[in-house]
Amino acid sequence: MTVNGEGSSDEPTRLADIITPLFADQAAGWSAQLSGGEKVELLAGVNAQDDCAIFRIEGEQELVLGSDYVRGSKFRLYELGYLDDYDVGYYLAMANFSDIAAMGAVPIALLSVIRYPRAMPDEVFRTVLEGIRAACDEVGAPNVGGDIGTAERLILSASAVGVVESGASLRRSGARPGDRLCVTGATGVAAAAQKYFGTLDADGTRISASKEEHLLNAWKRPQALVRHGRCLSTSRMVTSCQDSSDGLKAGVQSIAAQSDVGFVVDEDSLPVADLVAEIAELSGTDRTGLILGDSVDFQLVFTVPPEHVPPLRGIFAANDLSFAEIGEATAAREVVLRRKNGEVEDLPGVPWRHSS
Amino acid sequence: MTVNGEGSSDEPTRLADIITPLFADQAAGWSAQLSGGEKVELLAGVNAQDDCAIFRIEGEQELVLGSDYVRGSKFRLYELGYLDDYDVGYYLAMANFSDIAAMGAVPIALLSVIRYPRAMPDEVFRTVLEGIRAACDEVGAPNVGGDIGTAERLILSASAVGVVESGASLRRSGARPGDRLCVTGATGVAAAAQKYFGTLDADGTRISASKEEHLLNAWKRPQALVRHGRCLSTSRMVTSCQDSSDGLKAGVQSIAAQSDVGFVVDEDSLPVADLVAEIAELSGTDRTGLILGDSVDFQLVFTVPPEHVPPLRGIFAANDLSFAEIGEATAAREVVLRRKNGEVEDLPGVPWRHSS
Repeated sequence: MTVNGEGSSDEPTRLADIITPLFADQAAGWSAQLSGGEKVELLAGVNAQDDCAIFRIEGEQELVLGSDYVRGSKFRLYELGYLDDYDVGYYLAMANFSDIAAMGAVPIALLSVIRYPRAMPDEVFRTVLEGIRAACDEVGAPNVGGDIGTAERLILSASAVGVVESGASLRRSGARPGDRLCVTGATGVAAAAQKYFGTLDADGTRISASKEEHLLNAWKRPQALVRHGRCLSTSRMVTSCQDSSDGLKAGVQSIAAQSDVGFVVDEDSLPVADLVAEIAELSGTDRTGLILGDSVDFQLVFTVPPEHVPPLRGIFAANDLSFAEIGEATAAREVVLRRKNGEVEDLPGVPWRHSS
Repeated sequence: MTVNGEGSSDEPTRLADIITPLFADQAAGWSAQLSGGEKVELLAGVNAQDDCAIFRIEGEQELVLGSDYVRGSKFRLYELGYLDDYDVGYYLAMANFSDIAAMGAVPIALLSVIRYPRAMPDEVFRTVLEGIRAACDEVGAPNVGGDIGTAERLILSASAVGVVESGASLRRSGARPGDRLCVTGATGVAAAAQKYFGTLDADGTRISASKEEHLLNAWKRPQALVRHGRCLSTSRMVTSCQDSSDGLKAGVQSIAAQSDVGFVVDEDSLPVADLVAEIAELSGTDRTGLILGDSVDFQLVFTVPPEHVPPLRGIFAANDLSFAEIGEATAAREVVLRRKNGEVEDLPGVPWRHSS
């Protein structure tokens, strides 16, 4: 039903004509199994159009639940035209799945909350949903419902749910002095993208088009590291974990606070993406600050006792994955950086605080 | 940490200083058990400050999940000053728990998403959270996390999770011709409140202060009918159910559509709240239209085969609860009203459509 001249339909129509067909395939016969044979089976997803989605759970397991609101159309790079509606839908889902990955769980569901201006055309609405669907397909979990309706502007929020073997969920609170501090990959890419595209002017130095695309992908196609998380949880070797979505510094500080330890981070060991190094130089920014600051990268930060590092590397290698050791947990509760020159100082970088 | 002159702190501070102490009690040692001994135990709630909350699940059961965004500060009655920040927090939680109740499930968790203007004082933020806490206490389920941060205005969304015995969840799709159509109580109260307070002028007729308070309570203290829902699901007699949060008419139409049946609703059998009758008369509105239209009342609408009505009444009575039979499912797929005078017509009342 067209309620205005721009081809935008009402909520019941969008639910029946856009959402249900888009997600019916994902829901049909969906199930997952954990390593001990514990099962989760989707009984009613979006297509049931019920008050709630329904799963059958069999076997003792842990359920993990998280929610993330995403600024979406208020992202600076969206406002500047670098991100589109598909991208913010994709981002919404992945940001939520990243929390599930950080717990070592298998994602089983996304619940998406999408509010939009009354005049938003069906095609734009559908594009947001298609981005969400692609991210769900990527991690193998269905979007099982949520909420749609109008608001003054596009508002995006979601919740994600996952399951993990009993006793295997990864928390922030188990790190012990002597544990090695590790990260699944280079951080600072998302912040480098903001810095580069946010300050670009017509006569400024440009990086190559392919590099620009790569940089932008930190925002367009972020990845929830579910496979990494599963290696960590099923190994039963890891003492703490969280994602780096508030920045690497915030991640390390948070594990420190919850585990009642400190950390020495080795500047020399931090994984450095070539692009981050290039943007740091181009913009005259401290590279290590960029790597440690409030860059939203969705890497996993974790701790593991030193004797378990080699076997964990083996598990990762068997899955074509890797990680870097970047420091060590200490009994002293400070979190510090050991610079390349041996000097020790507070961790540099912009601290995490949700900006409006 | 005060970031501006109005005593509003940043997100990490609010999480640590306001949210964690407010919800720690709810989380401590929380568990629930279903009728077959199936268990759910909260391992990590808000106080763990982790990426996700964690539950341990034991025994085969069904998990139900839903999300509701609430207009909150955009409610007409909030804008008019009849509802405050505590009320919209309370409402957010209850609207979400109502979806769980409609599935016949035991609520186990709320995840709240609260975004607010940077200048919102801590005290206002705390008041919203206190409303959420009170609603969680009321239904006995903990708020286990979610998301906070800034936005241009107060944005409220949440997800609720529940568990129910395997095979016992209530859906919209099982009604069969001949089933009795039932409702747990009078509808139209929320719409009557909007009509009364929304059009009140200085020299208009007023109802008594105690009646005004009662009317406003449809918005200030809505109740998720968890106990009713549990009677329905554990009875194993009910063929379909949903809440009336989109209005009674929309609820009946939705069960009809999902179950592939029609309904004859008897005007004579509809429960009528005295206040709804009074407001209908006062405002010159069709009373039945007010009862059936898009009033957000959170009653449960359900179907039950006629032979199961007496035993179900017995189960309700044993729990000091009751319900009304308001019509019958038909093989003919129309949904109609039989007026007191015997005439049959389409269901009156404003159809559901989320207003902005």
